[in-house]
Amino acid sequence: MLYFENDYNVGAHPKVLQKLNDTNFEKLSGYGNDIYCKSAIKKIKEACACPIADIYFLVGGTQTNQIVINTMLKQYEGVISAKSGHINIHEAGAVEFTGHKILEVPSKNGKIVPEELNNYLETFYNDFNREHMVSPVMVYISHPTEYGTLYEKNELDEIAKICSKYELSLYMDGARLGYALVSKQTDVSLADIAKFCDVFYIGGTKVGALCGEAVVFTKNNAPKNFAKLIKQHGALLAKGRLLGIQFDTLFEDDLYFKISKNAIEMAEKLKEILKKKGYKFYMETPTNQQFIILSNSEIERLKEKVIFSFWEKYDADHTVVRFVTSWATTEEEIKLLAEVL
Amino acid sequence: MLYFENDYNVGAHPKVLQKLNDTNFEKLSGYGNDIYCKSAIKKIKEACACPIADIYFLVGGTQTNQIVINTMLKQYEGVISAKSGHINIHEAGAVEFTGHKILEVPSKNGKIVPEELNNYLETFYNDFNREHMVSPVMVYISHPTEYGTLYEKNELDEIAKICSKYELSLYMDGARLGYALVSKQTDVSLADIAKFCDVFYIGGTKVGALCGEAVVFTKNNAPKNFAKLIKQHGALLAKGRLLGIQFDTLFEDDLYFKISKNAIEMAEKLKEILKKKGYKFYMETPTNQQFIILSNSEIERLKEKVIFSFWEKYDADHTVVRFVTSWATTEEEIKLLAEVL
Amino acid sequence: MLYFENDYNVGAHPKVLQKLNDTNFEKLSGYGNDIYCKSAIKKIKEACACPIADIYFLVGGTQTNQIVINTMLKQYEGVISAKSGHINIHEAGAVEFTGHKILEVPSKNGKIVPEELNNYLETFYNDFNREHMVSPVMVYISHPTEYGTLYEKNELDEIAKICSKYELSLYMDGARLGYALVSKQTDVSLADIAKFCDVFYIGGTKVGALCGEAVVFTKNNAPKNFAKLIKQHGALLAKGRLLGIQFDTLFEDDLYFKISKNAIEMAEKLKEILKKKGYKFYMETPTNQQFIILSNSEIERLKEKVIFSFWEKYDADHTVVRFVTSWATTEEEIKLLAEVL
Amino acid sequence: MLYFENDYNVGAHPKVLQKLNDTNFEKLSGYGNDIYCKSAIKKIKEACACPIADIYFLVGGTQTNQIVINTMLKQYEGVISAKSGHINIHEAGAVEFTGHKILEVPSKNGKIVPEELNNYLETFYNDFNREHMVSPVMVYISHPTEYGTLYEKNELDEIAKICSKYELSLYMDGARLGYALVSKQTDVSLADIAKFCDVFYIGGTKVGALCGEAVVFTKNNAPKNFAKLIKQHGALLAKGRLLGIQFDTLFEDDLYFKISKNAIEMAEKLKEILKKKGYKFYMETPTNQQFIILSNSEIERLKEKVIFSFWEKYDADHTVVRFVTSWATTEEEIKLLAEVL
Repeated sequence: MLYFENDYNVGAHPKVLQKLNDTNFEKLSGYGNDIYCKSAIKKIKEACACPIADIYFLVGGTQTNQIVINTMLKQYEGVISAKSGHINIHEAGAVEFTGHKILEVPSKNGKIVPEELNNYLETFYNDFNREHMVSPVMVYISHPTEYGTLYEKNELDEIAKICSKYELSLYMDGARLGYALVSKQTDVSLADIAKFCDVFYIGGTKVGALCGEAVVFTKNNAPKNFAKLIKQHGALLAKGRLLGIQFDTLFEDDLYFKISKNAIEMAEKLKEILKKKGYKFYMETPTNQQFIILSNSEIERLKEKVIFSFWEKYDADHTVVRFVTSWATTEEEIKLLAEVL
Repeated sequence: MLYFENDYNVGAHPKVLQKLNDTNFEKLSGYGNDIYCKSAIKKIKEACACPIADIYFLVGGTQTNQIVINTMLKQYEGVISAKSGHINIHEAGAVEFTGHKILEVPSKNGKIVPEELNNYLETFYNDFNREHMVSPVMVYISHPTEYGTLYEKNELDEIAKICSKYELSLYMDGARLGYALVSKQTDVSLADIAKFCDVFYIGGTKVGALCGEAVVFTKNNAPKNFAKLIKQHGALLAKGRLLGIQFDTLFEDDLYFKISKNAIEMAEKLKEILKKKGYKFYMETPTNQQFIILSNSEIERLKEKVIFSFWEKYDADHTVVRFVTSWATTEEEIKLLAEVL
Repeated sequence: MLYFENDYNVGAHPKVLQKLNDTNFEKLSGYGNDIYCKSAIKKIKEACACPIADIYFLVGGTQTNQIVINTMLKQYEGVISAKSGHINIHEAGAVEFTGHKILEVPSKNGKIVPEELNNYLETFYNDFNREHMVSPVMVYISHPTEYGTLYEKNELDEIAKICSKYELSLYMDGARLGYALVSKQTDVSLADIAKFCDVFYIGGTKVGALCGEAVVFTKNNAPKNFAKLIKQHGALLAKGRLLGIQFDTLFEDDLYFKISKNAIEMAEKLKEILKKKGYKFYMETPTNQQFIILSNSEIERLKEKVIFSFWEKYDADHTVVRFVTSWATTEEEIKLLAEVL
Repeated sequence: MLYFENDYNVGAHPKVLQKLNDTNFEKLSGYGNDIYCKSAIKKIKEACACPIADIYFLVGGTQTNQIVINTMLKQYEGVISAKSGHINIHEAGAVEFTGHKILEVPSKNGKIVPEELNNYLETFYNDFNREHMVSPVMVYISHPTEYGTLYEKNELDEIAKICSKYELSLYMDGARLGYALVSKQTDVSLADIAKFCDVFYIGGTKVGALCGEAVVFTKNNAPKNFAKLIKQHGALLAKGRLLGIQFDTLFEDDLYFKISKNAIEMAEKLKEILKKKGYKFYMETPTNQQFIILSNSEIERLKEKVIFSFWEKYDADHTVVRFVTSWATTEEEIKLLAEVL
C-alpha cells in the first residue's frame, strides 16, 4: 500500500529522534526553561532575522491557534478569517470555545483577498450599530493555506498595510510553513513573515517533528504572563525539552528547510505525473498538497493500492481528493504511485 | 421633534404600568415563583395552544438568545443562523462568549432559504473531516427578521422538516413577535410557531413592556435545572414579579395582539405616504420597520425634524435608514411626519 | 400572614413608580443614553463625593458581580472572597462561569479579617510554585455582608492598604448598601467607600427599586468598551431608562437614605422584641437582617403565621432562620409580629 | 551537581525511546487511530481488569484534569477537591477557565477525609438556598497526593460509597500512579482503582514517558463525542502514535510497574539516610516524594551540590523542601547524595 494521505503519517526526522536519544539522560529544567529551548529560540530568532522576537513552544496547531488568539484578544474582540480558514472550519470550534467570534470574509483559493478585507473593515466602520458588534482586531491567515496555496509578498504587504491602517494584528498559521518557504513559486522569506506579521507559528508536527509548533511574537508583544496562560489552557509540558530539542535540531544547519525541500520536489514530480496522466486538478498549488477531482469509479480502483485523503464531494459522480507529500516521501514511493495512477 | 428611530423609545403600555402600581405592595415570592408569573404562564400556554410548554421569563433579547442557545447545546455544538441574524451581528458576540460557534448560511431578505439550509447540512454530512467540525444542532431564525420580513407558513414548515430530518432543534427569536402575528401579510399564528419550533421567545421589550421576554419550550424540553442556569448567567431577577406582572397584563384580553395591531396600522400608513412621496424602499416589509434609501442631503434636511435610525451606507451619496412604528405610535405623529417628508 | 422572609417581596417605592408613570411617554434614547441615566449618574457622583466616577446601571446583583469581576480581571487572575461571600456560595458559579477562580479566605461574621487577607497574600508571594497559581488581583467584600454585619472604617482602611501594597483592586458588593450606610452602628459613609474601593455597587433591587444596581468605578477605571462588554454578557437593557429613572428618583432628596432608615428602625424594634422574648441570636447584626436560632417545634408554630427564611441547619433540633425588614416594613407589621412571637 | 528536584528532569525510559525509533517510518493513521494506540488500550484494559473501559491518551496532567472535568460535568456543576488538590492550587485556574467551580473541602496529609466529604454533602443538601448553589457532582482525588501520600483501600471504598449515595462520580488524578501502585505501604491495586473510580488517569510524563497520560473511563461512560471535545480543547495530537507507542511500551511486560519500583526503592533508601542524619520530615510519605524541613542555612549549604524543590515557607528560618526520586534515579546518585547530606 502507498501512503499519500497526509504529512503526518510517519514519526520524526531521524536527526530529531537521534537528538532525543542523545540528550535523554541529561537532567534538565522543566516547563521550557531548559538549554535546548533556549538554544532553539536563539536559532529561530536568527532564522527570522528578528532579534526582539518572543518565542514559545506549543504541542499542536489547534492548541496554538486557540491560545494565540485567545490571549492576544480582549474578550469582546474577534478575529477575521477566510471562510475556508482552518480555525473557521476544522478545529471543532476551539476559538469560539474560548469566547471569541471568528469573522468570516470570502476566500479565494484559500486566501484572503486584500480588497475583500478592506471592504469588510470599511463596512464595519460605516456600520451605525458597531457599538453592538464584535470588534475586529486580528487577521488570521494560513500560509500555505488549507488548499496548499501561498500568499505573494505584495499580498502580504497589502494585508499588513490594511491591518496597520485599522489597528489589527496579523497572525499567520504556519502549520506547514517549511513547505511554503521552499516552494519554487514563492517570493516570501521567513524574515518577510517576521516583518509583516505580529505573530505567527512555525509548524513542526507536519515538518519533521513528533509534535510541536514554535510561536513567534515579532514585535516584543507576547501577552503578559504567557507561560501562566499556557498552563491555564492545559498546554504547558512538564518536559518542555521535548519541544526544545526537536526545534533545536530542526533549526541546526537549516534542517527544517532542507527536509521541506524534499516534500516540494516530490510534489513537483507528483504534479507532473498527474498532469501527464490527465488528472483534473481542483486547484493549482505550489506546495506539498495536491487536490484532484476523481470519478468515484477511479477512486474505487485507486484506493486498493493508495491511501489518499477524501476532501469533499464535487458532484454526484466525483469527489475532491488530496495527495500529500512530506519531508519523508521517497522517490521510490513516487515511482510506485506513478505506476498505479 | 418626531421620533421614529425604534420601537423602544417610550416606557410601557399604560395597563402594564397600572398593574405594577396595583400590585406594588402585595408580598410575593421571589425568583419567578409568584402568582403573576404563574398566571402569565397559564395564559401564554393557552395563547400558544401548547399545554405542555415550559415557560420562563428573562429580561432582554440578547440575554435570552445567549441563555437558550448555550443551555440547549452541548459545548461542541453550534447554531445555524442567517448571515444577517441578530445573534451573528449585533449582540457583541454574546453567543460565542459562552463557547458556541454560529454557523452562517446566506440570508435572503433577512431570512434563511430552506434550500440553502438543506445544502449546508448536506455539505456538512458529506464532509470527510466533519469529526473536526462543530456539529450543527440548532437553527436560529428571527420572526420578524432584522429587516422586518416574515417567514411564510410553508417556509417554516420546510425549515422544520429539514431540522427534523437532520435532528436539529428550531429556535425562533421573537423580539418583535407581536408585530409578526398581526401583520396583514402573514399566515402564521402563535400556535403554528409553537408547533414548528422547539423553542421561541415572545418579545416584551419592544411590544409594550418595560423589559422582558417570555421563553417558550414547546416540547417539554427545557434544559434540566434551567432556573439554576439562569442564575449562573447572572439573569435571574430577585423580583421576578416585574416580568410576571407585565406578561400577565399583556396576555390579558389579547392586549399583546391589540397593541401590536396599532404598530402595523401605523406602519401601513407610513408606507403609503413614503410610496406616494416617491421614497425608495430598501426592502418591502410587512411589519413595523421600514427601510428607506435616502440621499445624504435629504438626510440632512429630515434630521432637523425627525429622528430615525441610520442602518448602513448604501453608496457614496446614499444611506439606508429605518423608520419604525410601535404600539405607541399615534395617528397624529404619522400626520406630522407626512408633512415633514 | 406576616412576611419577613426578605427585602425584595414587594415592588418599588411609590415615588419610583410615580416617576416611571410620569415619564412613560417621553421619547428617550436607548441603552442608557437617556437624560435620566445621566441625571442619576450626576446625583450619585455627588452622593459619593467622587466627581471622576464612571457609573453604569445593571439589572441585578449576580449579574453585576459577574460582569465587574470578569471585565476587571485578566483571564488568569482571580478574586479573593470570604468563604461566606455571596459570589462564592449563592450565585450558582456565575463568576467561575466566566473563567475566574474565587480564592477563599476564612470569614469571621461574614467579613474578611485584614490579617487573614495579609497572610493569604504573603503565603502566595512566598510560594515557590506561584507561576502555576491563579494570580490574586482583587478583593471582594460585601457590605453589609451576607450575615448583615458591617465593616468598620478602620477595617476597610486596613484592607485597602493591603490591597494597595499587593496591587489588588478592592470591590464592594453593596446589594444592601443603603441599610449599611444608615445603620446606627456604622462609621462608614458613601464617600469613604468611594475612597477605599476601586469599584462598588449601590444596590437598588433590595432598597426601593423594582430592579437595578449602580456600579461605581471610583478611579476613572471602568474597563475599556464597558458598554460593549455589558452587551456581550447579555445584560444591556434596550430601555435603559428603566434603571436611570429609578436611580434618579432614589437619589433625589436623599430618598435612598431615608427609606433605608425605615428598615433599620424596624430592625431595631424587631431585635428588641426578639431579645425581650428570649430568642437566641445566631449573630449580632446592625442592619436589616436578623439571624435567629429556632427549635424545630418553634418553627412549626411560627410558620403558621409568619413567613421567614430558612438559612441553615444548626443542629438536629434547631435551625438558623432569618427575619428581614426593608424600606417597606411598617410599624403595624412589627406589632403583629411581636404578638405572634 | 545532584538532581532530586522532581520526577520529570530526564527524558523517557530507553525502551520507550527505542520503540519510537523502531516504528518511526511506519505509516500510521492520525489522531489516535493507529495500531499502537489500540494495542496500548488493550493492554491497559487488561492491567485494569476492566474490559469495558473507554481509554484515551492526552498529553499532560493539567490538560487531562481540565478536559475530564469539563466534559463530564454540566455547566452548572462543580467538582469537590481537597484544599491542597493540584487542580485547586497549581493549575493556574485551568478548571475554572472552562467554567466550573472547585468546591474545597479540608485536606489532611493531602487527602480528603471521608467524614469531611460526607459533612460537606450533608450540609449542601441541608442548605435551603441550594437552588442558587453550584451542584457538587464529582469528587477529585489524587493518588499519590501532591504530598506523596496514599489512600488506603478502605478510604477509597468509603469515598466511593459516599459518591454513590449522593450520585457523584469519583475521579482520580494518577499523575504519579505507578509510584502509588508499587509502594510498599499500599493495599490498593490498579483493578481496585478501576472498580472504585468512574474515571482516572495513568500518568506517563512522570513515570517513564516523554509526555502522555492515559484516561480510563471505567463504566462505559466516556462523554459522547469525546474525540471532538479533545479537539475543541486544542488537545488532539495529529501524531497520536506518539502517545500510543509510549503507553504500548510501558504496558508491555509490566514495564510501568517495574520502573516505578525503582523510584520507590530509591526513595526508601533516601528516607533511611534522611532519618539517620536527623532530618525533620514535614510529612511521612510512602512514595517517591519526600518533604523535609530545612533551616535556611542548611539550604544554603546543600544547594551548592544538590538541586531540590522549594515547597513553601515553614517559618522565618525554615523552609519545606522536596526531594524526589524517579524511575531513573540510580543507586550511585543516592550514595552521592548521602555524602552531601
